[in-house]
Amino acid sequence: MTTLDLTTDAVTLTEQLVNIESVSLEEQAIADAVEQALRGLGHLEVVRRGNNIVARTDLGRAERVVIAGHLDTVPVNDNLPARREQTAEGDLLHGLGTCDMKSGDAVILRIAATVPEPNRDITFIFYDAEEIAAVHNGLGKLAQSDPELIAGDFAILMEPSNAGIEAGCQGTLRVEVRTTGERAHTARAWRGVNAIHKAGAVLRRLEDYEPRKPVIDGLEYHEGLNAVFVRGGVAGNVLPDECVVEVNYRFAPDYSEADAEAFVRDFFDGYDVTLTDSAPGALPGLDRPAAKDFLAVVGRDAAPKFGWTDVARFSALGVPAVNFGPGDPLLAHKQEEHVPVADIERCEDVLRKWLTA
Amino acid sequence: MTTLDLTTDAVTLTEQLVNIESVSLEEQAIADAVEQALRGLGHLEVVRRGNNIVARTDLGRAERVVIAGHLDTVPVNDNLPARREQTAEGDLLHGLGTCDMKSGDAVILRIAATVPEPNRDITFIFYDAEEIAAVHNGLGKLAQSDPELIAGDFAILMEPSNAGIEAGCQGTLRVEVRTTGERAHTARAWRGVNAIHKAGAVLRRLEDYEPRKPVIDGLEYHEGLNAVFVRGGVAGNVLPDECVVEVNYRFAPDYSEADAEAFVRDFFDGYDVTLTDSAPGALPGLDRPAAKDFLAVVGRDAAPKFGWTDVARFSALGVPAVNFGPGDPLLAHKQEEHVPVADIERCEDVLRKWLTA
Repeated sequence: MTTLDLTTDAVTLTEQLVNIESVSLEEQAIADAVEQALRGLGHLEVVRRGNNIVARTDLGRAERVVIAGHLDTVPVNDNLPARREQTAEGDLLHGLGTCDMKSGDAVILRIAATVPEPNRDITFIFYDAEEIAAVHNGLGKLAQSDPELIAGDFAILMEPSNAGIEAGCQGTLRVEVRTTGERAHTARAWRGVNAIHKAGAVLRRLEDYEPRKPVIDGLEYHEGLNAVFVRGGVAGNVLPDECVVEVNYRFAPDYSEADAEAFVRDFFDGYDVTLTDSAPGALPGLDRPAAKDFLAVVGRDAAPKFGWTDVARFSALGVPAVNFGPGDPLLAHKQEEHVPVADIERCEDVLRKWLTA
Repeated sequence: MTTLDLTTDAVTLTEQLVNIESVSLEEQAIADAVEQALRGLGHLEVVRRGNNIVARTDLGRAERVVIAGHLDTVPVNDNLPARREQTAEGDLLHGLGTCDMKSGDAVILRIAATVPEPNRDITFIFYDAEEIAAVHNGLGKLAQSDPELIAGDFAILMEPSNAGIEAGCQGTLRVEVRTTGERAHTARAWRGVNAIHKAGAVLRRLEDYEPRKPVIDGLEYHEGLNAVFVRGGVAGNVLPDECVVEVNYRFAPDYSEADAEAFVRDFFDGYDVTLTDSAPGALPGLDRPAAKDFLAVVGRDAAPKFGWTDVARFSALGVPAVNFGPGDPLLAHKQEEHVPVADIERCEDVLRKWLTA
């Protein structure tokens, strides 16, 4: 088993974590290494559930903050082991998971090791299976099995955000909008009804859609309503009797899932609409005291998070949460994934300042 | 080998032909039986090419007419052997090929056997592989290899037409109309362009299409322009960068294939249009003397043929052609395929009267 050295710097630690391959559902080795390192620290209570590890201080502080990162990666794509590069813009660390999100995990481990008496109680969470179907998600499982273990006043998820704050997240749902017709031979088309032609009005309605851009806690979100699939057709000489447009709605966190579904059903009024998938957004919660202090230490304006992340799982438990981690989210899941060394250092500095001020 | 009895009535002969299974590309047994029966007649010159058989009188008449039928069927669907049924509306013969088109073949065989000295020279054609891809079509192969063998002043194709005349046929072509966009994550849709949304205008244009209905030789054709397939989509969270609408144009026989293509390209002006398939229509040719006489004997108004049939192959050789056969074309390819006995008898009577008047 790899032994992690928590006395080394966060960049070297990121490299060590990257070199423990941990594609989703194969996180045992990295979870073992993280658990062993945390148990060696003494000042933390450590609990393991499967390949999920929770480590907590219990100093009776007025506030408790949660800092979480996932341990898994998307599949290897000829991008291991980690490799450092010096560039004119600064040093980079290349490799699978450098950005999404083992650099964030390394920062958490460094804070865990070097801030034994923080000004707020801290719950550190390392979890598995974030990159695959939600049913496997380790944070989701902990929220079910041990909600009190991951509770807190404010949460930070180490999702890549260029070492700035991306607050909350937008929700996402999918519907199928179905038009129906009546089959007929195309040589006698007047005997049938073409369901694909009827979908034209559905697509035109989407093209005319104007996104909502609500401002929440000073952040401007930006919704989206998009056809992601369209399918229809029976044979090259048959009028199609069904056409399905699959639509993805990304909604700002002032809408609940029910609000979002109601909006979409109203938008497609007159059509057969089937909900196929839904996940709530997360409010930024920047009005909480712990969040305000954190913002002040970060020293940059927070941005809204447009994509869905696991911050929504904290939000569902009543814990406001933000994304804050090293690296560019647009590099996640790409073969050329990498992270600026400066982002790792900055994230560690910010967290240490905030937790020791 | 089954020996066909050409002295029996056409209904019994249909039954015999139906019971020789002859799914496309497996026509050898039925072709052997038909060839043997024709060679036994003495007054016909018989030529065989593969499983295609041509039998001709050569009496030096002023006109030559062609009467053709295909020998193959679509796959067996638990609808063999043939079965007779008496109903209040008249006797029926059930089974695969009863309608499409072994009853027509039986009528041809009866005329061949019983009209040794017709008032017009006759070319009887039995061909294979009509029900599958055009490349296999026996009539198409004969048109290539022996055009003089199938030439004539007028042709009758025994396609089911309820024992009436369906004249000429409409042409058919297919195009792909393609819209393109730019991929982006659906959570940041403003960074991309949704190609499926752009297809909405294509479909709306199709919905607003008004078909041409030109009158040719007194027959009103009826065109059609229909989306038969639509496809697009990359993933549930990605703006699609391509959408393809496959469109089938059925055009009246006053349009050439080039006219039809030009119409479609003009109709979809501004879009990327790719021609994928094209087959010409066939003019009805009802002004020909042989056709006029035939119409008079049939004694009913001719109707236009909307679907594409092999009459277009004759038309391409300069031979005007009509569809005239027992049975309802809407029953072709259905498990419950059947033919009214009265249709078979009527078709035989009409042809005999016309050829012996």
